[in-house]
Amino acid sequence: MTEALPVADGPAPELRVWALDGIPEVSPGDDLVSLVLAALEAQPAPDRWVQDGDVVVVTSKIVSKAEGRVVSADDREQAITDETVRVVASRVHPGGVTRIVENRLGLVMAAAGVDASNTPDGTVLLLPVDPDLSARRLRAGLADHLGVRVGVVVTDTAGRPWRAGQTDIAIGAAGVQVMDDLRGQTDTQGRTLTVTVAAVADEIAAAAELVKGKASGRPVAIVRGLAHLTLADDGPGARALVRLGPEDMFAQGSAEAYEQGWKDAVEGDRQ
Amino acid sequence: MTEALPVADGPAPELRVWALDGIPEVSPGDDLVSLVLAALEAQPAPDRWVQDGDVVVVTSKIVSKAEGRVVSADDREQAITDETVRVVASRVHPGGVTRIVENRLGLVMAAAGVDASNTPDGTVLLLPVDPDLSARRLRAGLADHLGVRVGVVVTDTAGRPWRAGQTDIAIGAAGVQVMDDLRGQTDTQGRTLTVTVAAVADEIAAAAELVKGKASGRPVAIVRGLAHLTLADDGPGARALVRLGPEDMFAQGSAEAYEQGWKDAVEGDRQ
Repeated sequence: MTEALPVADGPAPELRVWALDGIPEVSPGDDLVSLVLAALEAQPAPDRWVQDGDVVVVTSKIVSKAEGRVVSADDREQAITDETVRVVASRVHPGGVTRIVENRLGLVMAAAGVDASNTPDGTVLLLPVDPDLSARRLRAGLADHLGVRVGVVVTDTAGRPWRAGQTDIAIGAAGVQVMDDLRGQTDTQGRTLTVTVAAVADEIAAAAELVKGKASGRPVAIVRGLAHLTLADDGPGARALVRLGPEDMFAQGSAEAYEQGWKDAVEGDRQ
Repeated sequence: MTEALPVADGPAPELRVWALDGIPEVSPGDDLVSLVLAALEAQPAPDRWVQDGDVVVVTSKIVSKAEGRVVSADDREQAITDETVRVVASRVHPGGVTRIVENRLGLVMAAAGVDASNTPDGTVLLLPVDPDLSARRLRAGLADHLGVRVGVVVTDTAGRPWRAGQTDIAIGAAGVQVMDDLRGQTDTQGRTLTVTVAAVADEIAAAAELVKGKASGRPVAIVRGLAHLTLADDGPGARALVRLGPEDMFAQGSAEAYEQGWKDAVEGDRQ
């Protein structure tokens, strides 16, 4: 069972979010803990060091690079296929085929999360093998070297049905709640809030993206002010944010499901 | 055309997000501008006043209440039907029927965004008639009374396919970019970032939720540090974040699309 650290009560809390300067280009074999430590040491103000209860948010791209998850760009389509558990939807357009797939991490993403930006020419980048494990390692490394107990969130950028643009989401987490279950709490009318479970790790990822940006070369951010969401142990990890299976009302794209229904009717083999 | 305000360059920027204490229970006819002004005046520290380039984030619930969007709870199912443009998916479960619908704002949400928490007993709350307009009014009111040029985001809480839990999203916006189009920018390798358009208004909504919470009675937050995303005019509004129509690969739930395909095949009337 995960246990929240004790936190002082007080007035409306303030969240502070800033990106670390000084993270260099990351190469396979680089030690992520050392890179973050060096960037922290270069912070201009002492209050920009990490402290207990902070959340360190890391773009998955540098985790992947450090872990050597680089493959030849010639194999991009094969890389997507290899990362794919199940094709959810696909669409042909002038630039090629967009495949929305469930990948081996349970994430439903375009191109399975395989990324061709910010990588050496001729290569593409796969997501980390186990981003929750990557987060736990970074958390343990920061605890070992600095004696601090922080949360870690590993992020990636994802599109959403029905909404334009992308947001960052949590694909790995350690030492931080990924959901804040408000279902037992009462609202201001004294009634029980029955529905809301806030996906706080995704909201942390989104907040951090606002300072990290995509093109700015600042892949690490610190979020201060969420100690009440940090945990004494590693916690459930971002895998707990995956919701597939019987609860998933969008397991197939509309066109794919329509085709399947039509095919099954013609073949007399209704699902 | 919307024009970004000039912003000084500098080191890694810091985001600060805090919720306002002192917003009372809101009733139909209350003036939202006055409520926010009163809460701002009660802020303990001068640096917690709003200033040019801040973004004021308001939970849609209090906007709805001020605008009198309260209906009898007896009419909840009818209210959902009235707010519905199109049923996307529905599912029967022990507690009733969950309807995922496109509402008249272009938002795809459970129960069309009709809300039964934090409302007087026997009532439910509809979303604001035009949250972009509500945002523009609040922005204009704060400019009139305080002489500040801020962005305004009106938020609601929404579930997502494939992900557990809910996050806050922007359903109204004024004076702030809702998308940060990075497609013209180059990455750290000097190559063009071809895909990423960050849905920054949704990320602002998510960041604000981390301090507002659901049960805390703090429905307004200030986000400081995003002046580069604020605009000299009202800008496109959150309606620009709606992506439906031909681009929508999930216009119907899988079960609904399957049924439709099967039915059309049987009737010899394929779509």
